[in-house]
Amino acid sequence: MRLATLKSGSLDGRLVVVSPDAARMLPVADWPTLQSAIEAWDAAVPALRAAAAAVEGGAGEPLDPAALAAPLPRAWQWLDGSVYPSHGALMDKVLGIAKEPVDWPLMYQGVSDTFHAPIADVPMTDEALGIDFEGEFGVIVDRVPMGTIARDAAAYIRLIVQINDWSLRTLAGPEMKSGFGWLQAKPPCGMACFAVTPDELGGAWQDCRPDLTLTVDWNGRRFGAANGRPMAYGFDELVAHAARTRTLAAGTVIGSGTVSNPEFREVGSSCIAERRGIEIVDEGAPRTPFMRFGDVVRMEALTSHGAAPFGILEQTVVRA
Amino acid sequence: MRLATLKSGSLDGRLVVVSPDAARMLPVADWPTLQSAIEAWDAAVPALRAAAAAVEGGAGEPLDPAALAAPLPRAWQWLDGSVYPSHGALMDKVLGIAKEPVDWPLMYQGVSDTFHAPIADVPMTDEALGIDFEGEFGVIVDRVPMGTIARDAAAYIRLIVQINDWSLRTLAGPEMKSGFGWLQAKPPCGMACFAVTPDELGGAWQDCRPDLTLTVDWNGRRFGAANGRPMAYGFDELVAHAARTRTLAAGTVIGSGTVSNPEFREVGSSCIAERRGIEIVDEGAPRTPFMRFGDVVRMEALTSHGAAPFGILEQTVVRA
Repeated sequence: MRLATLKSGSLDGRLVVVSPDAARMLPVADWPTLQSAIEAWDAAVPALRAAAAAVEGGAGEPLDPAALAAPLPRAWQWLDGSVYPSHGALMDKVLGIAKEPVDWPLMYQGVSDTFHAPIADVPMTDEALGIDFEGEFGVIVDRVPMGTIARDAAAYIRLIVQINDWSLRTLAGPEMKSGFGWLQAKPPCGMACFAVTPDELGGAWQDCRPDLTLTVDWNGRRFGAANGRPMAYGFDELVAHAARTRTLAAGTVIGSGTVSNPEFREVGSSCIAERRGIEIVDEGAPRTPFMRFGDVVRMEALTSHGAAPFGILEQTVVRA
Repeated sequence: MRLATLKSGSLDGRLVVVSPDAARMLPVADWPTLQSAIEAWDAAVPALRAAAAAVEGGAGEPLDPAALAAPLPRAWQWLDGSVYPSHGALMDKVLGIAKEPVDWPLMYQGVSDTFHAPIADVPMTDEALGIDFEGEFGVIVDRVPMGTIARDAAAYIRLIVQINDWSLRTLAGPEMKSGFGWLQAKPPCGMACFAVTPDELGGAWQDCRPDLTLTVDWNGRRFGAANGRPMAYGFDELVAHAARTRTLAAGTVIGSGTVSNPEFREVGSSCIAERRGIEIVDEGAPRTPFMRFGDVVRMEALTSHGAAPFGILEQTVVRA
């Protein structure tokens, strides 16, 4: 099942169910928003499944990706992990941080009151802040009781999403060194068109990890095509980490951190900073600049059959 | 004007206006929740002021503090500063962190989907996590455009609140050292009974700082009575820091961090960890233990005339 949210007069938009070919969409009478459905998931699923069958059968209206908001345009909580080991090692080089290794999944709390639309102009105040994208995956969970362990956590994962975690690298290192973590370095993220149920991914959802290739294009040029599988911790473990000392509200979004593979020289990267880390290793200094106003990043996660379950994300940096 | 929120079937509760003696309350027809009023503040104020006059004139029903939720039971964003210099210096000793000084207000993003009621049992999973309270002040802002500077930021401060920022000290140091900041170390906060407009504080609101004494009692014994005035950065500067690279949604809550005074040996502390820091300085080792299940913390901010604009906060640690 694939869900999307139409832009509307409300900040939460209007929930729609999407056809398998992503060409049509159908609203669901009693479930106006994704948040309302997530908060009463068991009650909502029959109506959502019925709408999915109807739209697959030809019901509904044409879907225009440009009319879509993020599947969840705002959430009560956004927690982002960093669990691709090859990414973490390169980032420490870029940021000049010598971190001790930890035996838990790194995770920070980010701004959740806005997720940018899949196709959007994203305002930034200053090119000098080191504007960067970060391609990653995320899950949207039901209410997760405090203290839920990893073995039980997978059952709370309702939807999977594809995220662009905008980052301002000039601010990132100093904020990390302060011990208080990122704040100014992490403006709101964007989400690709569709949120999908785990069953929709079939064999591409393994051990709570997405076996999908995240293609990243920067100004029309292929920048990365890393696979989402090699997470050091699965999303079940990320959910459990997040819920250790707090109950997670229904609709909490939890991210994987930037997708990265050990074969980064072959597959490329999902953020500019990581490529700069590779350049530091290989050439002694970073060479690739960060984004400029007008630059476009496009991301699309693909199955081994070439399907794009989340649709596209295509965002343009504009001057605020 | 003092506002409160009654517990109700909804997570957002029911907004009420409170009489000057805090004995009575009155709902406001068109503004069911504080979030709804904050999102349309200019439109809401006339109705709120009319209700305030009516309740002052004897209208309304008796107010029972035990029936209150937090004034804002959940918010789209919670950003907490740390701007009392005497607190920061002691905490670095407690946590064994050698931080370089920074020329900005330290601030982290915390969990905002829950603010505990003023009188509440607060569930924690484990006494070994170093359960601690942190008494502080906060503001609730209107929508603040990205890039708003400090000089313009005060105009967006709509309400002032009193907060207990629950902290788990055993987890705090390792999370700081990771560079990703606090997550498990910071479960949801509590709020005292009332949110007040700046004019309600009169001369006790100076330079966007609260000239109020925050009394803190732990299990019935006075633990601290520090004054809120000596913030190194005022709330206007905190709002501007928060808004540098993001627009703040209406209803964003921004905190001061633990209230602390340089005369901590005379006035006491607003959290246990700070007292432990003093003990490390004075005696070579911490002596005061953290909280146990069943412990009660009570906080009340007082004006120089002995008034308590925010009412009380009285929370009990219970086993989850």
